[in-house]
Amino acid sequence: MQNEDNLRHSCAHLLAAAIIDLYPGAQNAIGPAIENGFYQDFDLGDTTLSENDFKKIEEKMREILKNWNAFEVKEVDVEQAKKDFAWNKYKLELIEEFAKTGKTITENNPGNFLDLCKGGHSSNPKEEMKHFKLLSVAGAYWKGSEKNKMLTRIYGTCFSTKDELSSYLVQLEEAKKRDHKKLGRDLDLFVFSDLVGKGLPLWTIKGSIVRRELERFIVDEEIKRNYFHVYTPDIARIDLYKTSGHYPYYKESMYTPIQIEDEEFMLRPMTCPHHFELYKSQPHSYRELPMRLAELAKLYRFEKSGELMGLLRVRSFCLADAHIITQSKQAGEIVNEVLDLIEYVADVLGFRKNEDYWYRLSLGDREDEVKYFKSDADWDTAEGVLRDAVGRREVKNVEAANEAAFYGPKIDVQMRNIHGKEDTAFTVQYDFVMPKRFELKFINDQGQEEEPVVIHRSSIGAIERIIAFLIERYAGAFPLWLSPVQFTILPVSEKFHEFAKLLHDYCVQNGIRSYVSIDNKTLGAKIREATLQKVPYICIIGEKELEGKRTDAVDKDTTISTRTRSGEEKMNINFYEFINQLRTEIETKQK
Amino acid sequence: MQNEDNLRHSCAHLLAAAIIDLYPGAQNAIGPAIENGFYQDFDLGDTTLSENDFKKIEEKMREILKNWNAFEVKEVDVEQAKKDFAWNKYKLELIEEFAKTGKTITENNPGNFLDLCKGGHSSNPKEEMKHFKLLSVAGAYWKGSEKNKMLTRIYGTCFSTKDELSSYLVQLEEAKKRDHKKLGRDLDLFVFSDLVGKGLPLWTIKGSIVRRELERFIVDEEIKRNYFHVYTPDIARIDLYKTSGHYPYYKESMYTPIQIEDEEFMLRPMTCPHHFELYKSQPHSYRELPMRLAELAKLYRFEKSGELMGLLRVRSFCLADAHIITQSKQAGEIVNEVLDLIEYVADVLGFRKNEDYWYRLSLGDREDEVKYFKSDADWDTAEGVLRDAVGRREVKNVEAANEAAFYGPKIDVQMRNIHGKEDTAFTVQYDFVMPKRFELKFINDQGQEEEPVVIHRSSIGAIERIIAFLIERYAGAFPLWLSPVQFTILPVSEKFHEFAKLLHDYCVQNGIRSYVSIDNKTLGAKIREATLQKVPYICIIGEKELEGKRTDAVDKDTTISTRTRSGEEKMNINFYEFINQLRTEIETKQK
Repeated sequence: MQNEDNLRHSCAHLLAAAIIDLYPGAQNAIGPAIENGFYQDFDLGDTTLSENDFKKIEEKMREILKNWNAFEVKEVDVEQAKKDFAWNKYKLELIEEFAKTGKTITENNPGNFLDLCKGGHSSNPKEEMKHFKLLSVAGAYWKGSEKNKMLTRIYGTCFSTKDELSSYLVQLEEAKKRDHKKLGRDLDLFVFSDLVGKGLPLWTIKGSIVRRELERFIVDEEIKRNYFHVYTPDIARIDLYKTSGHYPYYKESMYTPIQIEDEEFMLRPMTCPHHFELYKSQPHSYRELPMRLAELAKLYRFEKSGELMGLLRVRSFCLADAHIITQSKQAGEIVNEVLDLIEYVADVLGFRKNEDYWYRLSLGDREDEVKYFKSDADWDTAEGVLRDAVGRREVKNVEAANEAAFYGPKIDVQMRNIHGKEDTAFTVQYDFVMPKRFELKFINDQGQEEEPVVIHRSSIGAIERIIAFLIERYAGAFPLWLSPVQFTILPVSEKFHEFAKLLHDYCVQNGIRSYVSIDNKTLGAKIREATLQKVPYICIIGEKELEGKRTDAVDKDTTISTRTRSGEEKMNINFYEFINQLRTEIETKQK
Repeated sequence: MQNEDNLRHSCAHLLAAAIIDLYPGAQNAIGPAIENGFYQDFDLGDTTLSENDFKKIEEKMREILKNWNAFEVKEVDVEQAKKDFAWNKYKLELIEEFAKTGKTITENNPGNFLDLCKGGHSSNPKEEMKHFKLLSVAGAYWKGSEKNKMLTRIYGTCFSTKDELSSYLVQLEEAKKRDHKKLGRDLDLFVFSDLVGKGLPLWTIKGSIVRRELERFIVDEEIKRNYFHVYTPDIARIDLYKTSGHYPYYKESMYTPIQIEDEEFMLRPMTCPHHFELYKSQPHSYRELPMRLAELAKLYRFEKSGELMGLLRVRSFCLADAHIITQSKQAGEIVNEVLDLIEYVADVLGFRKNEDYWYRLSLGDREDEVKYFKSDADWDTAEGVLRDAVGRREVKNVEAANEAAFYGPKIDVQMRNIHGKEDTAFTVQYDFVMPKRFELKFINDQGQEEEPVVIHRSSIGAIERIIAFLIERYAGAFPLWLSPVQFTILPVSEKFHEFAKLLHDYCVQNGIRSYVSIDNKTLGAKIREATLQKVPYICIIGEKELEGKRTDAVDKDTTISTRTRSGEEKMNINFYEFINQLRTEIETKQK
């Protein structure tokens, strides 16, 4: 990959050379290689660029590249560098910084374009750099700070071979089609409103069905596994989070306080202290442990408006959260049972071990007493328990230093979104700190007070995030049980409306989410619409389909012809049998 | 009732006379008749009173009453009044006020106790006032303001006959047993935490079951009736509520803003503007109307800490809310359909027409242009539609002037809590204002843009409030489908634990919430506990019950003996049949 990074970073120079040639007065800022490509930032003055300009720019890049034989690199002193880049205020600012910190200043020139750069380039640019492509354009603040000027950022990529480039571009197109933001709009699953505010999705009629199905699935599954699903308030006094210790650690992620009479209340950033208060409302015996307190909890965490993204990064989300209060000797067993649940749930949703998700063991740092609670023995025990649990799984895992919670280590279940960005989908955390802070106790089998440990966990994570992953996983063509509309009935003309409604009524009585399309669009338009909406099953009701059949009632002889969203057709199948087949497919949550 | 009010107000004087006699330096403030009784406020200096003192006070009252022949009333001037009440700073403050507003000042004296009073007394105190009783003691601020001194308020009552008093006291005892705050604690249904904050209930394991059953019941029932249940954010920009017009009208009920970057966000006090934003995210045809958007919506409204009460008055609640967007010509039909739903739901929950609930038609005021949107014709239409809908029902109804929402009139479904206080449980509102403010539109059958009207409604109201009413309605002995624990299995000794667990497993597989009691308490204690917890069915497993039966498996020959919480016993009944009977009782939501 190092080689490809060099290639891509070199390509950022090439893009800079082309832009500066094409747009007089343009100044290039930084241009690093990134995962699968590169970007280059520009101050273009009043000029705005769009993807329509890419062809022209790429042609210019090709033209320039002909004369790029090799990157010549040389060290220069501050004075020389300032002279060379007098025309570029961004480079000047960087030179000043390098001078202050005593860094070496290097310039390079691949042929006819002098740039400030610390190196790492293609060794044979003219030949190696041929297979590039510009991809998109966006705004980006200089040095990432909103206080600075907004620059124009052009993204592109470059590969060693033409085939690699092509297959990457195909993959990108595919990703675009699966993008949950695009599909969320196209399939009308969720919307945003300026008046309601950024990062706060409103779930539409269709999206709400997906959400409710998921919520009920996880609540029912957890109840089966001896969880107690409870309800606790979404706001609480600031003192609760001071007691938990979240306030100092998470302050930056919390919203400003709400004043009620003479007290300050916070939108909750997490559920744990609420569950601990519930636990503490009664004394408990070891016989009641492990006590699995779960909640579909709405949580509120600050995200900068610039970092919000669809359902993946929002300002309020609903976490399928739980806190398992257990005797410490049972902790390993509990972590294991949680991983069983996670793997079961991932499987039902169609996420594959190793391919779609893997484990990350996020560890503490014994030396960092600011970030982590100090208790080496507890950390050793906890990390041992988690490492052991992860080790016994058939799922690949990595260890990540310094990624633990302040109260203990955790197992993160990692997934990638369609753009390749890795995110934590679910998590299992071992907590030996909160029980102390909240003075949680139970009476052990010797009749003595003892301190439990707490396993924090999410099973399907945040509802918003898992739905984003699901949309991208299925490109919006959800399994039947999750599909907002499961069956669309298309009468070819008004004559067949009544019979279509009878079929629809039978579906509804049998728990099938069916829809009869009775507006005055053409049949072709209706089929297209249902297909675009990725409805799993369609049936058309017309003269041909009903020939010789009674149309005043649905009975055991009723037959229909169906087609699936992938185009598979079945003619004259028994309607009752078809509905039974759908019911089975729904009940077994077929993928 | 006027007569009883006089009696009770007279009794407040009698209580004042007794207290001032018993506690030197005590000053009496006001003492009005209230529903079913009276209270009298006192400044007792450092003395604190409890119910233990009532006997002594009542004796003193009886002693004083012997000499009360008639209330002598006379008008006095300010000087005289000030002289007579120089010892009582509360009366002096009242005298000053009367003087300022030019009110007549009257004093009365029934025998040996001069008090400041505007009149309305028993005409034959010595005889009529015999049947009194002191009931409770509480703190109350002078003039209801937290800025003033906290006084001691003694509640009591007085009836014309001994029988009336006795039966009222029995009724009070009964009410205390049904009090949802007391039962909430005894049955461990919900708790409050100082750290979380006042008015924010935490639902326990058991209470959460009741809540989830109710939530699913109403969501499923509404979906059956063509509602779409959606999810929208619990916070939104302040601008949303300025657009809706709620901000100026409801400002005092809203919490302080949360600052996020450069915008202000509010905890939502209502759901409607959120649903309108959702509606507006797509164009709509008349074919899609009526569109019934529903949500289990968490709402936040300010209540003074002094006015919080259990689940009836909280600071955040979950409303089973909906907004039906309809062509105005269909509004009457929709209101009717909503009342059908409300009466159905009330019936399922065991609330009886007329006895437990009635309708209140809350009207606007054509003259009040500050409180109500000005549009006389719209008000006439809307009130007509609601009056007509209510008139066709077999439920008693009253009209209440000046109780409408600012955007239109409403039908309130009124209930009383166990203490006799009337509260609105559900509501149906006709809104012709919001569609204008949000510019809601649909395309009518002529292809033209038209403005819909909105019916705001709740079906089971706030989950918190309806559960409070349910607890009091059933005195905590919920119908089987709502009972947190439906069946308790009590093995008499360890020998029977295994078989008890087999029975339990069978119950769980069949969707029965069963519980096996396997701690080391005595059988008597266990039975008592299950009875106190109002578990609908109990069964005891011991030598006698299992004689001659296999205990290694549950099969079609398994028999058990059960007893209900009301003490009804059934011996040797077939276990499978029993479970089927429970399933039917649950599925049909038997009361």
